[in-house]
Amino acid sequence: MVMALWSGRFEHDASAFAQEFGASLPVDRRMYRQDIAGSRAHAAMLAQQGILSCEDARALDEGLARVRERMESGEFAFDIRDEDVHMAVERALIEDIGDAGARLHTGRSRNDQVATDARMYAKECCRALMEGNLSLRRALVERARSSDGCILPGYTHLQHAQPVLFAHHLLAYAWMLARDFRRLQAAYDAADACPLGAAALAGTTYPLDRQATAQALGFARVVQNSLDAVSDRDFLLDLEYACAVCMVHLSRLCEEIVLWASSEFGFIVLADEFSTGSSIMPQKKNPDFAELVRGKTGRVVGDLTALLVTLKALPLAYNKDLQEDKEGAFDAVDTLQGALQCVEGMVATMEVNDRAMRAQAEKGHMAATDVADYLAKRGLPFREAHAVVGRLVLQCEKRGCELSELPFEEFKAASSLFEEDVASCLSVEGIVAARTTEGGTAPCAVEAQLANVEEGISCDEAFLCSVEAPE
Amino acid sequence: MVMALWSGRFEHDASAFAQEFGASLPVDRRMYRQDIAGSRAHAAMLAQQGILSCEDARALDEGLARVRERMESGEFAFDIRDEDVHMAVERALIEDIGDAGARLHTGRSRNDQVATDARMYAKECCRALMEGNLSLRRALVERARSSDGCILPGYTHLQHAQPVLFAHHLLAYAWMLARDFRRLQAAYDAADACPLGAAALAGTTYPLDRQATAQALGFARVVQNSLDAVSDRDFLLDLEYACAVCMVHLSRLCEEIVLWASSEFGFIVLADEFSTGSSIMPQKKNPDFAELVRGKTGRVVGDLTALLVTLKALPLAYNKDLQEDKEGAFDAVDTLQGALQCVEGMVATMEVNDRAMRAQAEKGHMAATDVADYLAKRGLPFREAHAVVGRLVLQCEKRGCELSELPFEEFKAASSLFEEDVASCLSVEGIVAARTTEGGTAPCAVEAQLANVEEGISCDEAFLCSVEAPE
Amino acid sequence: MVMALWSGRFEHDASAFAQEFGASLPVDRRMYRQDIAGSRAHAAMLAQQGILSCEDARALDEGLARVRERMESGEFAFDIRDEDVHMAVERALIEDIGDAGARLHTGRSRNDQVATDARMYAKECCRALMEGNLSLRRALVERARSSDGCILPGYTHLQHAQPVLFAHHLLAYAWMLARDFRRLQAAYDAADACPLGAAALAGTTYPLDRQATAQALGFARVVQNSLDAVSDRDFLLDLEYACAVCMVHLSRLCEEIVLWASSEFGFIVLADEFSTGSSIMPQKKNPDFAELVRGKTGRVVGDLTALLVTLKALPLAYNKDLQEDKEGAFDAVDTLQGALQCVEGMVATMEVNDRAMRAQAEKGHMAATDVADYLAKRGLPFREAHAVVGRLVLQCEKRGCELSELPFEEFKAASSLFEEDVASCLSVEGIVAARTTEGGTAPCAVEAQLANVEEGISCDEAFLCSVEAPE
Amino acid sequence: MVMALWSGRFEHDASAFAQEFGASLPVDRRMYRQDIAGSRAHAAMLAQQGILSCEDARALDEGLARVRERMESGEFAFDIRDEDVHMAVERALIEDIGDAGARLHTGRSRNDQVATDARMYAKECCRALMEGNLSLRRALVERARSSDGCILPGYTHLQHAQPVLFAHHLLAYAWMLARDFRRLQAAYDAADACPLGAAALAGTTYPLDRQATAQALGFARVVQNSLDAVSDRDFLLDLEYACAVCMVHLSRLCEEIVLWASSEFGFIVLADEFSTGSSIMPQKKNPDFAELVRGKTGRVVGDLTALLVTLKALPLAYNKDLQEDKEGAFDAVDTLQGALQCVEGMVATMEVNDRAMRAQAEKGHMAATDVADYLAKRGLPFREAHAVVGRLVLQCEKRGCELSELPFEEFKAASSLFEEDVASCLSVEGIVAARTTEGGTAPCAVEAQLANVEEGISCDEAFLCSVEAPE
Repeated sequence: MVMALWSGRFEHDASAFAQEFGASLPVDRRMYRQDIAGSRAHAAMLAQQGILSCEDARALDEGLARVRERMESGEFAFDIRDEDVHMAVERALIEDIGDAGARLHTGRSRNDQVATDARMYAKECCRALMEGNLSLRRALVERARSSDGCILPGYTHLQHAQPVLFAHHLLAYAWMLARDFRRLQAAYDAADACPLGAAALAGTTYPLDRQATAQALGFARVVQNSLDAVSDRDFLLDLEYACAVCMVHLSRLCEEIVLWASSEFGFIVLADEFSTGSSIMPQKKNPDFAELVRGKTGRVVGDLTALLVTLKALPLAYNKDLQEDKEGAFDAVDTLQGALQCVEGMVATMEVNDRAMRAQAEKGHMAATDVADYLAKRGLPFREAHAVVGRLVLQCEKRGCELSELPFEEFKAASSLFEEDVASCLSVEGIVAARTTEGGTAPCAVEAQLANVEEGISCDEAFLCSVEAPE
Repeated sequence: MVMALWSGRFEHDASAFAQEFGASLPVDRRMYRQDIAGSRAHAAMLAQQGILSCEDARALDEGLARVRERMESGEFAFDIRDEDVHMAVERALIEDIGDAGARLHTGRSRNDQVATDARMYAKECCRALMEGNLSLRRALVERARSSDGCILPGYTHLQHAQPVLFAHHLLAYAWMLARDFRRLQAAYDAADACPLGAAALAGTTYPLDRQATAQALGFARVVQNSLDAVSDRDFLLDLEYACAVCMVHLSRLCEEIVLWASSEFGFIVLADEFSTGSSIMPQKKNPDFAELVRGKTGRVVGDLTALLVTLKALPLAYNKDLQEDKEGAFDAVDTLQGALQCVEGMVATMEVNDRAMRAQAEKGHMAATDVADYLAKRGLPFREAHAVVGRLVLQCEKRGCELSELPFEEFKAASSLFEEDVASCLSVEGIVAARTTEGGTAPCAVEAQLANVEEGISCDEAFLCSVEAPE
Repeated sequence: MVMALWSGRFEHDASAFAQEFGASLPVDRRMYRQDIAGSRAHAAMLAQQGILSCEDARALDEGLARVRERMESGEFAFDIRDEDVHMAVERALIEDIGDAGARLHTGRSRNDQVATDARMYAKECCRALMEGNLSLRRALVERARSSDGCILPGYTHLQHAQPVLFAHHLLAYAWMLARDFRRLQAAYDAADACPLGAAALAGTTYPLDRQATAQALGFARVVQNSLDAVSDRDFLLDLEYACAVCMVHLSRLCEEIVLWASSEFGFIVLADEFSTGSSIMPQKKNPDFAELVRGKTGRVVGDLTALLVTLKALPLAYNKDLQEDKEGAFDAVDTLQGALQCVEGMVATMEVNDRAMRAQAEKGHMAATDVADYLAKRGLPFREAHAVVGRLVLQCEKRGCELSELPFEEFKAASSLFEEDVASCLSVEGIVAARTTEGGTAPCAVEAQLANVEEGISCDEAFLCSVEAPE
Repeated sequence: MVMALWSGRFEHDASAFAQEFGASLPVDRRMYRQDIAGSRAHAAMLAQQGILSCEDARALDEGLARVRERMESGEFAFDIRDEDVHMAVERALIEDIGDAGARLHTGRSRNDQVATDARMYAKECCRALMEGNLSLRRALVERARSSDGCILPGYTHLQHAQPVLFAHHLLAYAWMLARDFRRLQAAYDAADACPLGAAALAGTTYPLDRQATAQALGFARVVQNSLDAVSDRDFLLDLEYACAVCMVHLSRLCEEIVLWASSEFGFIVLADEFSTGSSIMPQKKNPDFAELVRGKTGRVVGDLTALLVTLKALPLAYNKDLQEDKEGAFDAVDTLQGALQCVEGMVATMEVNDRAMRAQAEKGHMAATDVADYLAKRGLPFREAHAVVGRLVLQCEKRGCELSELPFEEFKAASSLFEEDVASCLSVEGIVAARTTEGGTAPCAVEAQLANVEEGISCDEAFLCSVEAPE
């Protein structure tokens, strides 16, 4: 029978209900690899420090390797009565190697053990998300490169504002993702300190070599205060926050994908793989995956909120409330990972309707700013130029025509500063091409921007290589 | 092979990844009972309206009954390729009865179907939570009744303020739970309208009898606008909100349980069933379950936040984002249900240390208000009386004694209004007994309060009976 | 000089910084009317119970009336050193009537006083929001009534699904608002219990008549547990929750307004009063107010989250944390009130482009469901009918035509069940008119729905009348 | 009269209500310094690039300097009709220098202007918060240094676990704050890119030198995509997130302060400056400021949630929703700044009751782990040692004594491995002193830790110096 290992001082066994309510096993069992790696490093260090005999250490190491294999293969039956992954591993170990197994938990506690596991797991999550992040950025760049000369209306307030290159528009998201990578790096760095050796909360009486275990497990440093070591969950907050902001960014792109795929916009057609139909309306081709990503933003924001609420007003050091830290973090990571892949798929496979974009770019008097600039460059204070063009637009609206269709006389009547060459301000291509300042939408500026985006990607790829897991 | 039923117009099949990302089956399969009940009622109505033949209707009904049995018994293998519970049931049905099964989806859509299932399920959740709510209230009342005369310090700012009956303190939570019951009723009522018949979003061309299905399924009314019917998730918000507030209430009680179980307070000893030990510190007896409930408050607040975020800025009518509605709601409900049971268990089984409570109630100059009242009743404006007693307390602090231990001369020196009978204000029992106004802590007032609490419980029990599921 | 009234026992004065950090006056001063009304009722009751002399009571009443006038007129100078509105009123009173003023605080505490003020204020907020809610519902009904026969595409997944009456679409929001009214009623009811008489936390030694003050202040009942009375903030949670959900509803409508006002949709033109321009782009006419309402949804969700976080894990009874309750609640109420007015203004004044809506309603093969129903009614199982029409739509897509433009032969080739009369399923008006079931979009069904909406409004108007403030 | 500067194309003026609802002036006016600095740099660059004449540039610069003075002195009357701070500054400028003022808005838009102001302001906020953060860390270090040898019970689950140095406990918070500093650095870096030159969304037709303005304004770099420049608010999210996590940390310390100040713990006495009294209970000395900081954690979490909600699903580029970005960020910053100051004040001035801490440290069988380690070191597998000691503790509980008070025979009876020298494991000082591993609570380890904390402070001070504002 599985007995709780801490049951020494208790007279009654925990009721089945309480056992289930209190168990973290269904959630934390996915950290079994980290748990076992941590135990192996701990055992090796104990032996090195003369705390364990070499035979025990060898038995432990081999036993743990076998436990890992059994869990890997699915052969091991997790049992809720084990309460958590640490107990499950330990029970499996003791079943395998007997007494020596009971020596493993020397100089440590589940408090520092779970923190170690969670940090190793978080680092792995960061790496996976960085991978997904880079992959989407590459897809955006590729799409941008291949959408040569494609122009769509740039929007503010969802109103046509000024025409922009589609490439320029896509790259805006690449920059968001570059910032998201920064946040993942910060989360990675936050997790990259080893708490092992803090024991329950105060350190231990054994002469542990904390630097040795930290190094063996690939940590950059050790946590330098034992109370902090067992009660700090900032690294999970940082990870969830990084996920939440990235989801918000993806929700913005997905909102646009939904708009672009609508009949009214008609800018893109999503690939069949990223569309679904209706059980009742045979004509529907729905941008389900864009909607799902947008909708799932809620859950990741919720995960972040949840952990902040849980941590609020907790006294030091470890409290059981902290057991609630992992499920939300895992959910945020899984959700973002799926979302990145989904969005990458949509971006890579959607069919872009250049003509529809271009046609809309003709509408909405988008030359207005340039016409105002035209006047301003000829000496009219910008505010007055703005007013002149405002009145011209009002005229167009009443006539039902575009600014570019207004006869030259009307321009002349509005301001004597207008000459025939105003025509050059009125073409969509002209407007785009004129915006050559750094970060502007002119083709040459976008070309320069692309190079910068790519440099950023290379740089982040190099970072990711540098933190790849050892194994 | 399982094929998506809506795949008619598509040339390529959805990729496996997208399928998994988009599937709601792992979450919504727990609504299979509701889904089947809804389909049976729909089929019966279709037959009644002459839309289906009687044979088809009978085949459908019997087929659905068999599907339910197979799912009930665990014999049916859910397959992620079915995408959602509706498709899973329909596939099972068609496998069972063939062509007639394909007639079931007449005059409805998954949009109104999922809304119907979710509302039925939400109603069931409300009932279960009402049950748990009542059970905890009964436990509080019982504990209050049995804690005869037990007095603890009443706190404000976690400082001793005035002594109160432990029963009075416990009943404060019974009132919170009574309000939580109100919120569950509101959520129940919000869910109690049948959307079936709204079809995809606009109603249907079949002459459905919406009142008939609504009645057959135990709904109080039908949703009166088809667009609203498929896009409204207020009932889940209401349910999650009810859960979140109740969790906040339980977090307050659990915070107190943690405090009371501490060495410093020493007011209670939790039963072994609701305590756990430490893997490293053999002496520990931890109030894990109180901590867990407190910590889980975060996830339920997070669930509520998540759905609000998801719903923000969604245009009408159905959007796939809405698929994200259920997981958080289920989680909130499960969490609260477990928490109610846990707290009930702790309240019912904890051992109360009357003497420790009473001993603390002697400390902190808690007679101060009554002494000030004493002066005020003898004519000193309260604000001045307050100042006089403030100075007396300062004296006590400097001497390291309690107000009740100060010699009478000191009182007299502070104000000539003091007479020997001030002693009556200084005893803990006297202070408690003097608060006889409605809702006060005097034994007689608490007795009256208990009757009111019990009346509220009876009344809510009656409500719960009145909404019990038919089946 | 202004001295903190509780400073009796302290040797050093609070530093200026701490004073400002701790003061709630800038926030709670807006409750001065409630505070004064509460004090007048309290004084009258004290006299009635023989606790105050009649002269004192009269002096207090008249003094408080004068204080109110001074605050009303702006003549009274609030001073941060007063800390809160209660102290500010009391100081003003004592300055006015002297010693008698100091007798007012008999048998009460700021703990029950602030709870009383907040509840009275919350009730007033509920009434104001109910007013705004009803006003917007009436505007929607009026707009629906006047948009006779106007048809727009009904959307699911922002894809054309089935055509619906614009009136039907608008009424969906009227139903959401009807539910929002329910939530405001619940918040009103939650606030409608008088805590006065709970004093600091345990009741008081004075023979107060709590029912009398409750009645004088227009409360429906008294709070029945004194600890609960000073620590319960559920009524503010309920109010903020009601605001948050209503904002989410408005954000959905505003999202649609933004879409409709775009060049691509072109369904509406907002009135100039509800549009703004650009400082640089003279042609812009931006739906700023719709965007603002949508954006402000965030702050109200944030306000709700904030209070939930603040309340989590607070032990009984009053804790200073509770001072944080009001600012967010006031903000939520103010925001919603402005938003309701804004949306009402936009709905009432926007110009609807029936033709643009109608033109879009022709697109997207929206007859597909009805064509499938046509086949199903002729005996083809719906799932198969769905597949047949799916293939027809695919054909249309390849040809670039609408389903209604496909030659009859193509229909016949797809299924021999098609007869010439299938044409009747293909017109927009036909599709709309066919959806006559309850809650459907057929004109007759919408007419019936309108009557129900109006009945709901009348009923809620009657409720609002019944709870109008006495004064 | 103040006219909206964009009103050229409108026929009706915005209604007063809408004007107020839409105005951001009450919130953004606090950025007037940043706005003016930005305009001066912009004007200088325009002249340098030959876009403005030198006279105009000089007039603008001098005029803006005067406007700043007027605003600084409070002489300038802000008018809600100006809508925002940009318009207010521009109006003031035009009033002062006439026509030339109208030339300032050349080659820019309010979209890039507000983003520039907000980033400059955010950087200033970060610097101020870094200052407050460092100041509190120094206070913690000082307190730790001066609490020589003071021991309190270390808690897990709020149960006595193992004794720790009070210095060690305080330093745990210093490490949290060191991480908070990291987050502020990240927010600072996120804000440190200049968007000026992005104009409305697409760049501008003027040959601007973006690097020049960026440098003049102290930015490290320019934002490299114009769409991103006007729609990115990540820097405010990062700032709010940094505030939220730091508030959560402070809430933990404040929870402990509230506990420690309670009668039951009695570990500290707060200074009068950081305590308040009760209006009814003369004896109370409440830890109001600790409670307020704890309570205000809610609002900052709410602020973060609010901005995430607002940003969700916003399409590119600028939308009016973004106007909602600043109020919450300002609130989060103000709140944290006050909270840091408050906590620093409490930490610096609280009186610590060493004896009370020490007395509690004797309780709770805290030697249990060391006794188990004692057995383990003598060869008993730790799990068995744990069980042996568990039984000893149970015996103590039944007798009502501490583990250290149990006669040696009982030890011997429990395990023959016990020798007399077990006594050395039983003293509080012995337990503390034995935890010498890195990060442990032994005096020597804490001394080493202190040095590390101080090195971190020095390093962060150097960073802060390096980013000090130029002016």
